[in-house]
Amino acid sequence: MSGSVRRLRRTKSAALEVVAGNGLMDRRVLLGRGVIFAGAMSAVPLGSLTGAAAEPLTDAPLTEAPWSLEPGAIIEPYQRPSRFEKDVVRTVSNPSGQPSASGARTPHHLVNGTITPNGLHFVVVYGGVPDIDPGKHRLVIHGLVKRALVFTLDALARYPMVTRVSFLECGGNSAPLFSPQPLQANVQALHGLASCAEWTGVKLSTLLEEAGVEPKAKWFIAEGADAPHLTRSVPLKKGWDDAMIALYQNGERLMPANGYPMRLLLPGYEGNMNVKYLRRIKLVEEPAMSFWESKVYTQILPSGKAYQFYLLQEVKSFITQPSPGLILKGPGLYEISGVAYSGAGRISRVMVSADGGRSWAEAALQEPVLSKAFTRFRMPWRWDGGAAMLQSRAWDEAGNAQPTRAEFVAQRGELKVVPPVAAVLNQHCNAITSWAVDSAGEIKHAYA
Amino acid sequence: MSGSVRRLRRTKSAALEVVAGNGLMDRRVLLGRGVIFAGAMSAVPLGSLTGAAAEPLTDAPLTEAPWSLEPGAIIEPYQRPSRFEKDVVRTVSNPSGQPSASGARTPHHLVNGTITPNGLHFVVVYGGVPDIDPGKHRLVIHGLVKRALVFTLDALARYPMVTRVSFLECGGNSAPLFSPQPLQANVQALHGLASCAEWTGVKLSTLLEEAGVEPKAKWFIAEGADAPHLTRSVPLKKGWDDAMIALYQNGERLMPANGYPMRLLLPGYEGNMNVKYLRRIKLVEEPAMSFWESKVYTQILPSGKAYQFYLLQEVKSFITQPSPGLILKGPGLYEISGVAYSGAGRISRVMVSADGGRSWAEAALQEPVLSKAFTRFRMPWRWDGGAAMLQSRAWDEAGNAQPTRAEFVAQRGELKVVPPVAAVLNQHCNAITSWAVDSAGEIKHAYA
Repeated sequence: MSGSVRRLRRTKSAALEVVAGNGLMDRRVLLGRGVIFAGAMSAVPLGSLTGAAAEPLTDAPLTEAPWSLEPGAIIEPYQRPSRFEKDVVRTVSNPSGQPSASGARTPHHLVNGTITPNGLHFVVVYGGVPDIDPGKHRLVIHGLVKRALVFTLDALARYPMVTRVSFLECGGNSAPLFSPQPLQANVQALHGLASCAEWTGVKLSTLLEEAGVEPKAKWFIAEGADAPHLTRSVPLKKGWDDAMIALYQNGERLMPANGYPMRLLLPGYEGNMNVKYLRRIKLVEEPAMSFWESKVYTQILPSGKAYQFYLLQEVKSFITQPSPGLILKGPGLYEISGVAYSGAGRISRVMVSADGGRSWAEAALQEPVLSKAFTRFRMPWRWDGGAAMLQSRAWDEAGNAQPTRAEFVAQRGELKVVPPVAAVLNQHCNAITSWAVDSAGEIKHAYA
Repeated sequence: MSGSVRRLRRTKSAALEVVAGNGLMDRRVLLGRGVIFAGAMSAVPLGSLTGAAAEPLTDAPLTEAPWSLEPGAIIEPYQRPSRFEKDVVRTVSNPSGQPSASGARTPHHLVNGTITPNGLHFVVVYGGVPDIDPGKHRLVIHGLVKRALVFTLDALARYPMVTRVSFLECGGNSAPLFSPQPLQANVQALHGLASCAEWTGVKLSTLLEEAGVEPKAKWFIAEGADAPHLTRSVPLKKGWDDAMIALYQNGERLMPANGYPMRLLLPGYEGNMNVKYLRRIKLVEEPAMSFWESKVYTQILPSGKAYQFYLLQEVKSFITQPSPGLILKGPGLYEISGVAYSGAGRISRVMVSADGGRSWAEAALQEPVLSKAFTRFRMPWRWDGGAAMLQSRAWDEAGNAQPTRAEFVAQRGELKVVPPVAAVLNQHCNAITSWAVDSAGEIKHAYA
C-alpha cells in the first residue's frame, strides 16, 4: 500500500500529538483512512494505547456457541431489536397514564450516529397518544386565504414532496441544568428530549400558494387533533421558508406519539411548535397568545421580562460517550463522542476539553454536516487514569456560541425549584454540560 | 413577500413547461420554494392540476373525532407504528422456517425518503436468525498478520468510529426481470431486496493496522457466526478503503437479522459479501472459492463464462410511486418518485419517461446526494388519463448508465426458469423497470 505509506509519512507527527490538556489528541487522526490513525502509532502500538482493548489470539481450542450450531428463528415481517438490547429504551415519565403531561427520553448514551431510530425518538404529549384513523383525518387551511381548503392524506400524497434530516428538541430539554447543584442524572435524563430523524412530506408553502394567502396575514395558527388541541402561532415567513407537513419519519409513516398521521415540521424551532396530529392551519394577523405559548412555553427572566416567541432552539452540544452510567475500564485510548446542533443552521465547530475548560481541542465533525440536524463529533482521548472533566462546546454557521453554564445562568437565571416543576418552568437551556471522570473510571454530572 | 414575487416572475415560464411526452413537467418546479411551484400556475390553479386533490372547505358543522375528545394511550418505552399501518411490513419468503434460505423484502411502494426504517430493512438468511449473546461474541483477525487479535464488543467500542449512509442490495434482487414475460408483481416483490440505512462502526483499516498486515496478503476471508458460516473473500484494498465493522444501524444496535451484534459493511458491494454476525477475518493470498462465491453467487453467462467476483452492485433506479398496487384516482398532477443508487459512487443523473422511453426528462435529485446511498428522485407529472408507460434511468458519477432491459438481456441472457429458482440463479439485474398505467389508473409491470 505505497499510497498509504506516503500519506503516513506526512501525518505521523501530527497524529501522535497531544493537542490539549489531559490527553486530547489531534482530531486529524480520525479524518483520514484508518491507516493514518494506527500507522502514526507505529512507535506506540495501538494495542497499548487502547489499554490492550484487543486481546492476542491464543491456541485455546475453539468452542462453538449454540448460535453457530443450530438454525435460528423465523424472520418477522416487522423486525425489532435483539432481546439483549431490552434496556435500550426510552425512559417514560408517566407510565401509569395520569392526567398530565407524559414524556419519553432518547437514551443518547446507548445510541450512536446521527439518526434517532423511530422506536427511540423522544416524545412529549399532554393527553396521551391518540389513535387516529388516517382515513378520517383532515387538514384544513383557512383564515386569511382566498380559498379555504381541506386535505385528506390521499390528496397530500399527490403533491410534490421533500425529504430532509432535522432535529427536534423540546423547549424543556436540559431543564435540570437550571438547578443550583448538578443533579446526578445521565445524558438521557438531562438531554433526552432531543432527537433527529429524516422527515418526508409536503412543503407548507406549496399548500399556502394553492390556498392563496391574503396580504395582511403575518402569522398562522397550527392546531393538533388530539384532545389537548395544542395550539401555537408561527410567523408566516417560516411557512414560506422550510416548514413541512411531515408524513414520513425515517422512511415510514410517523410514529403515533410523534404526530401520526401528519405533523407540522418547523426545522430548528422549539419542539412543541412542530404541532403533531396537525388538523388546522389558520392564517391570521397576530399571534393567538394561546395557553401553550403565553403560559406553558413562556419563561419569566430574572429581569422580569418574558422569554416568549423565542422560536429557535439555540446552538448546543453534549457528550454522549463517555457519560454517566458508562465506565472507563482502565487507562488508554477512548473516543469522546457526542452530538451538536443548532436551530440557526449548520454546526461550524465543536471544541472539546478534558480539563474542565482550561484547554480545548477541535473535534472532528462527521460528514455530511447538515443544517438544523444532529452533527456527530468525535475526539480521540488518551485517558491517563486520573481525574478529568469532559466538556464540549459548539458554534454554528450564524456565529452563535454555546454558553458556559456560568454565562447562561448570569443571563437566564437559576432555579430554587428542582424538577419535575423545573422541567415545565425552565426552558431553552443550551449551556455546556460537564462530565467528571474519577480515577475509578466512573462518570458524574458536574458544574465546572 | 416581495422576494417571492420577484422569484416567481423569473421562473413562471420554465415551471409551466411540459418538457417530455405524456405530461412530464420541468423538475425545476420541485427545486425551489413551494411558492415557485404554485405561483407559476397562477393562470392554471394548482387545484385543477391535482384534479382538485384538495377540497374546498364547506360550512358543514364540525364533528369531533373520538381521538379529539378523549385522552390517548400511555407512551411505550420502545414505540412502534400505528395499528393502521399493520400492512406496511416486509413480505417473508419462508414463514414456516423450512431448512432453506429465507428473505424479507422492503415495501418500497409504502415508504418514502432515503432511509429504510430498521423494522423494514430487507433480510436474506440461510439458517434463520441467530440469537447471539453480544457478551460472548468475538471477532478474530488472523492469517497473514503480525499479531492475531481478538475483539470483544466492549473493546471495539473504544476505537474511533465513523458514520455513513449506505445502501445494501442482495445480488439476487430484481431477479424476476430475467423472466421472458413481465411477472405481475409489485415493486416490493421485484426490488425489495435493497434497503438503505445509516451505519456506525469501526473502520476495518483501523483494526488491520493494529494487527499488522503481511505484504503478501491480497484478500481477506470474512466468516459469519451463524450456523451456515457464510464465508466470502474480499479484496484487501476494500479493507483499506471504506470497509467498516458496523455496530449501529440507524442509531441503534444492528437488528438481529441484519447481523447483530456486528457485521462487515462493504459499501456498494454485493449484499452477502457484507458478512453478518462477523466472527472472523483471515488475511490470505488468494480468494477462498467458498461455496457461497463459487456456487451460489456465481452466474453462468450466455457465453459460458462465469460472472464471479463482480463485487459492485451496478447503477440502478426504480419508480416507487406510482407503482403496482397503488391506483391513480383521476387525471391531474402526480409526483413520480423513486430511488437510485450505485456501488460505484454518487448518482449523477436520473431521467424519467412517461411514454416508454420515446422521450425523457431529467428528475430532481433530493439533496444531499451521498456516495453509495439511496438518492430519492422526483418528477412532477400531469396525467391526462390515458395510457402511459413510466420508466426511470440512472447514471452514476463514474459514468455508468443503467441499461434498458433489451440491452441487459442481450449481454446477460434471459431465463426459461421462473422464480423461485430464478431468484437464486440470476443475479445483478439492474435493467430499467417499466410500469404500464391504463386509463383506469391501474399500474402493471411491463417490458417496454
